[in-house]
Amino acid sequence: MKPEALEFSKRGQRLIGQEMFKVLERAKKIERLGQHVYHLELGNSCFPPPVEVIQTTIDALANGHVGYVPSAGHPNLRAALAEHYTEHGRPWVTENCFVISPANLLINQFLDMTCNDGDTVVLFTPGFPTYFAAAKYIGLNVKTIALESENGYHLTKLAIDQAVTQKPKAILINSANNPTGAVYTQSSLEYLIQQCEQHGIWVLSDETYAELCYRWPYWSLSAVDYSRLIVMSSFSKSYAIPGYRVGYALAHPFVASKLNLSCSTLFSCLPSFTQEGCVAALQVGETYLEEVGDYFSNMTEQCAEMINQSQILTCSVPESAFYLFIDIQKTKLSDHEFCQRLLQEQQTALTPGSSFGPGLESYVRASVSGEKEEVLEGIKRLVSFALQSKDSGPWLPSASSQLSKVGHAV
Amino acid sequence: MKPEALEFSKRGQRLIGQEMFKVLERAKKIERLGQHVYHLELGNSCFPPPVEVIQTTIDALANGHVGYVPSAGHPNLRAALAEHYTEHGRPWVTENCFVISPANLLINQFLDMTCNDGDTVVLFTPGFPTYFAAAKYIGLNVKTIALESENGYHLTKLAIDQAVTQKPKAILINSANNPTGAVYTQSSLEYLIQQCEQHGIWVLSDETYAELCYRWPYWSLSAVDYSRLIVMSSFSKSYAIPGYRVGYALAHPFVASKLNLSCSTLFSCLPSFTQEGCVAALQVGETYLEEVGDYFSNMTEQCAEMINQSQILTCSVPESAFYLFIDIQKTKLSDHEFCQRLLQEQQTALTPGSSFGPGLESYVRASVSGEKEEVLEGIKRLVSFALQSKDSGPWLPSASSQLSKVGHAV
Repeated sequence: MKPEALEFSKRGQRLIGQEMFKVLERAKKIERLGQHVYHLELGNSCFPPPVEVIQTTIDALANGHVGYVPSAGHPNLRAALAEHYTEHGRPWVTENCFVISPANLLINQFLDMTCNDGDTVVLFTPGFPTYFAAAKYIGLNVKTIALESENGYHLTKLAIDQAVTQKPKAILINSANNPTGAVYTQSSLEYLIQQCEQHGIWVLSDETYAELCYRWPYWSLSAVDYSRLIVMSSFSKSYAIPGYRVGYALAHPFVASKLNLSCSTLFSCLPSFTQEGCVAALQVGETYLEEVGDYFSNMTEQCAEMINQSQILTCSVPESAFYLFIDIQKTKLSDHEFCQRLLQEQQTALTPGSSFGPGLESYVRASVSGEKEEVLEGIKRLVSFALQSKDSGPWLPSASSQLSKVGHAV
Repeated sequence: MKPEALEFSKRGQRLIGQEMFKVLERAKKIERLGQHVYHLELGNSCFPPPVEVIQTTIDALANGHVGYVPSAGHPNLRAALAEHYTEHGRPWVTENCFVISPANLLINQFLDMTCNDGDTVVLFTPGFPTYFAAAKYIGLNVKTIALESENGYHLTKLAIDQAVTQKPKAILINSANNPTGAVYTQSSLEYLIQQCEQHGIWVLSDETYAELCYRWPYWSLSAVDYSRLIVMSSFSKSYAIPGYRVGYALAHPFVASKLNLSCSTLFSCLPSFTQEGCVAALQVGETYLEEVGDYFSNMTEQCAEMINQSQILTCSVPESAFYLFIDIQKTKLSDHEFCQRLLQEQQTALTPGSSFGPGLESYVRASVSGEKEEVLEGIKRLVSFALQSKDSGPWLPSASSQLSKVGHAV
């Protein structure tokens, strides 16, 4: 039989993956043809990780730490996290509140252990693509609430009320936000929890970029006592080790023990040596994170200025992280067409806006996390391409190009 | 509200985890009290990994390979695997046939992309606990077919016919087998595929222990052309790096691309540096594997002899790997009671037989993969405990002990 005729399960049919990895693959193809590509598609920090992190990992490997560790995570890392949160004003947190798992997988684990096929989940947009991919895969009824660029994409009381009205089983939030850089206020987050408690709604607070918040006092939901809450974060972005694939969840010990069963069932455990490296990250983090924060604060501001001076592209100045969510409406190109042509004509890779939710076809996301010169050149190419495209009119794709996804050109 | 009153999803409620990790946690608790424990519960090889594997991993870390790689896996590892299989008589295999993912997760990925909630899956018993945990988690209708100790737990035509009669969506097989050590013949595997092809059944062939087959010519299902087949394996056991958490699937490129979407959705990608280490494993493997195979061939034979001479415990001599599946019926203790007391009284950790399927409450699994002296002492303690228990009669647990799972004492 032809493999194309194979029948997969409903979940198998609903798999869409992550757009960024598809863009990365297209970019790598161009590179293999010998062309240089400016990578503004993935959040790969240009900072080297703290030397202590790498050295501790290397030492663990050299000392033969290549066996299994408990499925909930390396005891030292769980203890170090408990100490870290205790020092940051959460003295009730113990090592039993933590489960170590890749952050991207935690999104799937959270949804799968709280929601059944057909249940409603609320996602605020723009939002991280894995939320959509995971919810779709699991078969959830996704209700999106659009946050407004006029409000700097902040979480408002109105948006929370709209979310609760959907009677969802779970709500996912992401402050500091990818792709907008918005950081939510304590009062809005407290209002969210208050509403969720009243209606028995599970909450996943994705705080992956918390430590890269530089224009606003960051407030973590780990402060509240709510048993239907899982706070998750990652070492990937803060410490420039996305390739370690180590994240963690912080929850009530009862919920954490359920998550532990999920880890044990799905992947047994994570490597010992990467987790040991993350212990070192927590020990040396403070100074390192200050330097990184200062740099990205300047970098995002500088790049946003280049974009906003272009007269054709616009974006907010983010309060955290290293992404710019750019309005390309004036180019009259759809996001997919824009990104495809920008990669082919200017060797610059960005992520289409519609990966971050419905109705975002006139946006693209640029990651300014890479090497400074590369990023600045990429942004220049982005602006120059946008200006050219304005004059050249809409582009008719050839039959062979992969533009099947373009359906919203405006 | 009390966290115990929280409602999880159906999947959340069906999570059971892996028994070995629970045994490991109990053993670690005893160790923290200062007692030495003989670890015969996990398959952690006493061999150090090939030095080239560790050195290549360290070099990759030192060279800053800590960013993202493609979700399907590091291109060098996929290319090295294609070369490896080509050299081993599978010249049609290309890098597009491979997807890199932790082997335990691949079991979940396979079931989730081929089966819907309520579909039937056939598992042969004794079988690896994750098959049961994953199938239960996903909500599958598990039909077990018992392989017979009298046949050395081999896959027979009768067992295959019984399997197909269940009209399953998928069948999982595991040769070389954990926990029995059985290695299936080419003719039985070809008959299996022939039957599955006729009835449109998906097959997962878990070949994790293939390279640790030492008493029999190993025949891999990668030889057959069947688009509903996924062959999976791992670097964990062969190269003594279970803590790397790197496995792979080999499938038709169309099926592999579906699996790639699953990886991208679930966990983005695996680390670059661990995958680079696995490339080195494939380069240096042959000599290393020969030495490892010779050692475990002798070790399993020696331990099986100790057990069979005990007059109370019996086991087959395995054809592969480093597990002994031991009949404890004459002790008149159930597997959980046996393991619990053996750990408490003799500080020796084994895995209860019922983790490997229903009806196996009079078996335990011993892994003889650890340091030789530790293993030999553990087996001695196992035998001596069994002999004592015969005289002492059944044990009445105290109310505080964790014996809720014991329900089949014979």
